[in-house]
Amino acid sequence: MEKEYTTVVVDAMGGDNAPDAMIQGAVDAITKNAAVQVILVGREEVIAPKLEAYTFDKARIRIVNASEEISCDEPPVQAIRRKKDSSIVVGQKLVANGEADAFLSAGSTGAVLVGGQLVVGRIRGIDRTPIATLIPTDNGVSLLIDSGANVDARASHLVQFARMGSIYMEHVIGVKNPRVAIVNVGLEEEKGNALVKETYPMLKACADINFTGSIEAREIPHHGADVIVCEGFTGNVILKLYEGTANALVGMIKGGLMSSFRSKIGALLIKPALKKTLKSMDASEYGGAPLLGLKGLVIKTHGSAKAKEVCNSILQVPVFKEQEIVNKIKESLVPEAPERKEE
Amino acid sequence: MEKEYTTVVVDAMGGDNAPDAMIQGAVDAITKNAAVQVILVGREEVIAPKLEAYTFDKARIRIVNASEEISCDEPPVQAIRRKKDSSIVVGQKLVANGEADAFLSAGSTGAVLVGGQLVVGRIRGIDRTPIATLIPTDNGVSLLIDSGANVDARASHLVQFARMGSIYMEHVIGVKNPRVAIVNVGLEEEKGNALVKETYPMLKACADINFTGSIEAREIPHHGADVIVCEGFTGNVILKLYEGTANALVGMIKGGLMSSFRSKIGALLIKPALKKTLKSMDASEYGGAPLLGLKGLVIKTHGSAKAKEVCNSILQVPVFKEQEIVNKIKESLVPEAPERKEE
Repeated sequence: MEKEYTTVVVDAMGGDNAPDAMIQGAVDAITKNAAVQVILVGREEVIAPKLEAYTFDKARIRIVNASEEISCDEPPVQAIRRKKDSSIVVGQKLVANGEADAFLSAGSTGAVLVGGQLVVGRIRGIDRTPIATLIPTDNGVSLLIDSGANVDARASHLVQFARMGSIYMEHVIGVKNPRVAIVNVGLEEEKGNALVKETYPMLKACADINFTGSIEAREIPHHGADVIVCEGFTGNVILKLYEGTANALVGMIKGGLMSSFRSKIGALLIKPALKKTLKSMDASEYGGAPLLGLKGLVIKTHGSAKAKEVCNSILQVPVFKEQEIVNKIKESLVPEAPERKEE
Repeated sequence: MEKEYTTVVVDAMGGDNAPDAMIQGAVDAITKNAAVQVILVGREEVIAPKLEAYTFDKARIRIVNASEEISCDEPPVQAIRRKKDSSIVVGQKLVANGEADAFLSAGSTGAVLVGGQLVVGRIRGIDRTPIATLIPTDNGVSLLIDSGANVDARASHLVQFARMGSIYMEHVIGVKNPRVAIVNVGLEEEKGNALVKETYPMLKACADINFTGSIEAREIPHHGADVIVCEGFTGNVILKLYEGTANALVGMIKGGLMSSFRSKIGALLIKPALKKTLKSMDASEYGGAPLLGLKGLVIKTHGSAKAKEVCNSILQVPVFKEQEIVNKIKESLVPEAPERKEE
């Protein structure tokens, strides 16, 4: 019976490594979890012959044809409106219609976001849909929300981000009573730009959020909070700088190790330990980032995602489904609705 | 003759390691550069006995007494207005009066900033004074401007930051025709929040700036630009995350190296090479960060600055003085003044 499965639609055409990484990731995911099935959406004539090369349970991967593609250069709103037969629109419709549990794409972030709003739709009462990205720290993972969807958010939006992020961390990642903090330039309550100063007391007043105050950026890699709240501009800067700094430093260390015979020998000896450490800072271990606040699940993975990341992103979905994150977000909005007196 | 010297006022009372690091840094600086003299400003009864313990050219360090101190918790505007005999106010007055070439402090950033505006004063035509911080990259240094002074800047302010940063990089650091970029979430011109979208075409139109467009945060550690322009909120996040990520990663690598006997031996062999690499990423090598746009030189060093950073910050001042940065900034404003017709 189809109902027993978790069905994930994978955009086979989006991302630098499409369609091969998507096909491989889909095959790996259904092999690892027998309760998962995948719909690959995209140009059937391209996908089908490649898929045939794999050995897998044919009943659990099917192709839905979509003749168009949306590139990262296209203005997203126009692309979603015009390209009705694109893999992003066709794929998201399958979620909107209830034929699938989630849509996953490594394609244009803008188009996935706009499609989320227009095709899947926002939960009533949610004003903006942030990208919630897990980032590695030296002591576990934190959730960065918003990591890039809303570059000009308002205070009321940040409060919704904080609430949705808190629900996500508690129910999907399993962090009890997650510590929620707002990104700021200092710890004192009077610190911050206009947006943060307005948001701070609003977060403080939320009884359903374990708000711990401001977090300075230097504490983010030290797991200073479980949920890190900011607008999408700052969030995007944090996400990309995190990645860039780690890359640059590792490159410099490796370069430095090749500078003398002595250090070259040392480098050979430390290689396995270094590799293990760097793996724990590798974001691809955590799969994709969901767009929270939509009526269905939409997950964005890195444009450069490889099969491993695609597979891990697919394997997140059963947890999302089981925990009914969309419903939990809907329920969390009740306290903000007009008060009703119980008789 | 006093006129031959570069005179630096050092706030002996500001910072975590005051007054010892400031006294030591001053002694080291005048020993390294015979054309430098230092005025230590602060509580004479505390400074004098400590200073006496050193051997140095007594003619080139003197103490100016200031009976009050401003702590980092005090609201800056109030503190500067009320504490007329604080080390920050007394020290900055020496610069305002022309008795010294620069004021250096590791104390309250807010108070140093406000003092800069109220005691030293802005150059006419400059609307905001950004902090310009040099940050290490894997291929040289970049200037981050504003790294924290103006958390709610406007587009016209960012253009002034870009211009002042460009002058600084060219004349103090010696980078010819420095590449100036604005921090953004993507490279395309239509990307960005409202502030960046407004600023971008203004920067593009500046004939005196080598504007190379947007820079994504992941390219900052790879020396993607010489001058990195942003408002102070984003700049502060960048500066602190840079520091935090490097710290966390180094800690994790060191921890990883202690995990097996093999890697412990390797760690011993790579220690010198690793140390050298990490030193190149150590911001304290670059001394303090100037507040640009003031009528005199005001330099802020890290609150945790040690003698080395204090010394390096003092040794920057002769270059500033020689290059007449304040005058060059004044001159750069001429193109924006009302046009005058030559007869």
